[in-house]
Amino acid sequence: MDTDALIEWALERAVTASESRGAPPKLGAAIRHAVFPGGARVRPQLALAVAYACSDADNLQCAAGAGAAIELLHCASLVHDDLPCFDDADRRRGKPSVHRSYGEALAVLTGDALIIAAFETLRREATDRPHVLPQLLDIITEAVGTPNGIIAGQAWESEAELDLVAYHRAKTGALFVAAAAAGAASVGADPAPWRALGERLGEAYQVADDLRDAVMEADALGKPSRQDAAHNRPSAVAALGLDGAVARLNGLIEQAANSVPECRGSGMLRKLVYAQAARLMPPTLVPSAAE
Amino acid sequence: MDTDALIEWALERAVTASESRGAPPKLGAAIRHAVFPGGARVRPQLALAVAYACSDADNLQCAAGAGAAIELLHCASLVHDDLPCFDDADRRRGKPSVHRSYGEALAVLTGDALIIAAFETLRREATDRPHVLPQLLDIITEAVGTPNGIIAGQAWESEAELDLVAYHRAKTGALFVAAAAAGAASVGADPAPWRALGERLGEAYQVADDLRDAVMEADALGKPSRQDAAHNRPSAVAALGLDGAVARLNGLIEQAANSVPECRGSGMLRKLVYAQAARLMPPTLVPSAAE
Repeated sequence: MDTDALIEWALERAVTASESRGAPPKLGAAIRHAVFPGGARVRPQLALAVAYACSDADNLQCAAGAGAAIELLHCASLVHDDLPCFDDADRRRGKPSVHRSYGEALAVLTGDALIIAAFETLRREATDRPHVLPQLLDIITEAVGTPNGIIAGQAWESEAELDLVAYHRAKTGALFVAAAAAGAASVGADPAPWRALGERLGEAYQVADDLRDAVMEADALGKPSRQDAAHNRPSAVAALGLDGAVARLNGLIEQAANSVPECRGSGMLRKLVYAQAARLMPPTLVPSAAE
Repeated sequence: MDTDALIEWALERAVTASESRGAPPKLGAAIRHAVFPGGARVRPQLALAVAYACSDADNLQCAAGAGAAIELLHCASLVHDDLPCFDDADRRRGKPSVHRSYGEALAVLTGDALIIAAFETLRREATDRPHVLPQLLDIITEAVGTPNGIIAGQAWESEAELDLVAYHRAKTGALFVAAAAAGAASVGADPAPWRALGERLGEAYQVADDLRDAVMEADALGKPSRQDAAHNRPSAVAALGLDGAVARLNGLIEQAANSVPECRGSGMLRKLVYAQAARLMPPTLVPSAAE
């Protein structure tokens, strides 16, 4: 199963639609800029891995569509979070942020268009499985909207008092939970037992992000580093120290692996979780074989 | 049939969800500010009128949901279009715009949250009719996204060359087409013959908007007036003159009424179209009974 290709094809179909004849060309170019080349696509990879673990279905197109929809929503949130009224970030994924390249107006519209493209993609790739659409819509809208989704997470930054756990769960965890749950739902499996895997991986990803921000250079990161310290933001490194944050990340990965429900692919999935851990940890913090 | 109540209830359910326990309070307040009190709710009214005309169904909840979803997307576009990087509008519907009341960051998030709430609403109100969801998703995403939806329409303003017909069709017409088509689809009728009604009403609404901008005062309008002339924007009044624009509006209303397909409620619907015309025309341009 070439999961990379399934995901990239679903994303490519979404982006190509925005470049079709009659479309405003700059918006199409800005949408492509926001989606390609992507990061590790960890959320759609999670959706596909869960779908594959739960099912003997050869056709994982619907899971790839749900995963691609979640990735498009993630891209939308990055474009809007980079805007001057939020992080005012100049760079993202090793190139200028969308508003730096195309201006603020098109960056707002690019985020909006990516949200719509997500639902379009979900619908398109579920053409053969319309009966799972209502459940996938529930899972995905819950993870993005308010009260508990990534938009609510971002909105907590505008409040005088911040519930840190709710903030991280909404801002990073929600899309991982959705990815795991949508992977199961897309092949007709019960999504509920898969939520814990998404939660733990989401937390692990947040801690890894804090670690990378603390120890990596901007070049390797593709965006400015040491931002948490510079903006005095709460982070796992600030709260636990470097060693404590590394231990926390390893503990979360173990909890994630242990949370995988028994199913035909549970062994494969646990191995994948540990493999992710190796990718998440900044290289300088991985003990070398000689140590 | 109390269509106002059906629409307001569906909108209220959407907004209440954003104010539930655990939600960031300012975002919830900004969402309510953007949705209530509303304008004339012409798009959901159109969806319900078409659904009622096509069907003998007592239950129009799904049509109200599709109409409310379209209204939420319309509200989202107003919040984002008012931002400083677009129209930089201080007022909307007789009160401060969302970014004036809550700041730019929350205004961006409010628009995003309203888009998500639209799909949540569509899903929620179609619980009893899941088989129509795929078609409603197609109709609505096409009307909002790119290449032909309202986001594409707004993005044309960032292009050096503007196709005026495509611009207005996308920016105003698309949601009216979606409302008419979604009304039909929500009760299982073929949406295709209803698109012309949405197109003509969308054009009529655009001309009426230009007329109101040209002849009404800001107080009565609830937003600044004479903006087309001030920003040298293309408008029906600039192109056709005042009398020409009035004649154009009347012509479009007649075309809209004539486009109504034969169905059980076609007579009622044609009357409704003419009644709309009376509401759309600025009062000073309506010939008095004495004339």
